[in-house]
Amino acid sequence: MKILEDRIKQDGRVLGEDVLKVDNFLNHQVDPELMQALGEEFARLFADEKVDKVLTVESSGIAPAVFAALALHVPMVFARKKKSITLSAESYVADVYSFTKQETNHVMIDKRFLHEGERVLLIDDFLANGQAVTGLMEIAEAAQAEVIGVGIVVEKTFQKGRAMLDDQGVHVESLARIAAFENGQVVFAD
Amino acid sequence: MKILEDRIKQDGRVLGEDVLKVDNFLNHQVDPELMQALGEEFARLFADEKVDKVLTVESSGIAPAVFAALALHVPMVFARKKKSITLSAESYVADVYSFTKQETNHVMIDKRFLHEGERVLLIDDFLANGQAVTGLMEIAEAAQAEVIGVGIVVEKTFQKGRAMLDDQGVHVESLARIAAFENGQVVFAD
Repeated sequence: MKILEDRIKQDGRVLGEDVLKVDNFLNHQVDPELMQALGEEFARLFADEKVDKVLTVESSGIAPAVFAALALHVPMVFARKKKSITLSAESYVADVYSFTKQETNHVMIDKRFLHEGERVLLIDDFLANGQAVTGLMEIAEAAQAEVIGVGIVVEKTFQKGRAMLDDQGVHVESLARIAAFENGQVVFAD
Repeated sequence: MKILEDRIKQDGRVLGEDVLKVDNFLNHQVDPELMQALGEEFARLFADEKVDKVLTVESSGIAPAVFAALALHVPMVFARKKKSITLSAESYVADVYSFTKQETNHVMIDKRFLHEGERVLLIDDFLANGQAVTGLMEIAEAAQAEVIGVGIVVEKTFQKGRAMLDDQGVHVESLARIAAFENGQVVFAD
């Protein structure tokens, strides 16, 4: 998606070997017009999938996910992240390991908001090692909901998340695909 | 705002003496059409204030705030919540005590995203004791930004937050004002 790639080139900051900071338009300061464009693009890419619900994880996934849900005319549910959690009959829970923070969090969705047979689209801001998406997929499986696809704002193709999802036959659409960082610059795939 | 009051009557759940759960349309499952309507109403209410930026706190404020920012054609910044924080020259930080969770969190905004003289609109999902809004006001003051108003989705008029903001002469607009809970039912102010 050209406007997103242009924005990453203009405002993204490469830190070290594999970190891209996009906190001035995506995950701290947020550009609402861009979020709307991302949401509409996700809706277009998954238009034939009869999506019933959009799922994401707080907090950075919320803005693109709510615009995707708006464009698809369906509700959005954001999973809550908790450091510790008491297992409850009322929620679906999955573990999510963060390589960045080197800690395990739990993500949870109330059972009232995810049902058997629902066709769900997962949205997240980044796909690197695929931990957050895997957590949401575990929750969907526990609810017997069907994951019809995964929409990612920024994918780092050189980390293992994309290959793992491809191996499982998941329909993944990433709006920007980063192949590498070279001399502090972003190199896009394709 | 009638559609919001109707939705609270229809889908809100009163728990105990003073808790209203709106997790099926506002802060866990999210109704994107309603969020858009809330955002447009905030933009209308603060249309004359020359807003430069919308601020909120993750996570539940993000959806209404991003639609308010869209309607106002300005960026949105969501403050990050942290349990513990190392003071940094790069961020503005304030403490926020949660009466619900009985714990203090810190909220932070990167100094790159808030500047002297900026006219900021604070948005949050709930106003009860006013702790989150007070934290954002402290951050704005530290940045020498000007808080031109506070937009709240659901205000509980019987808790001390509104009176505290009125005492400080802050322009507050709440889209639903709850005066009391009686027999498990919501009683709106006015």
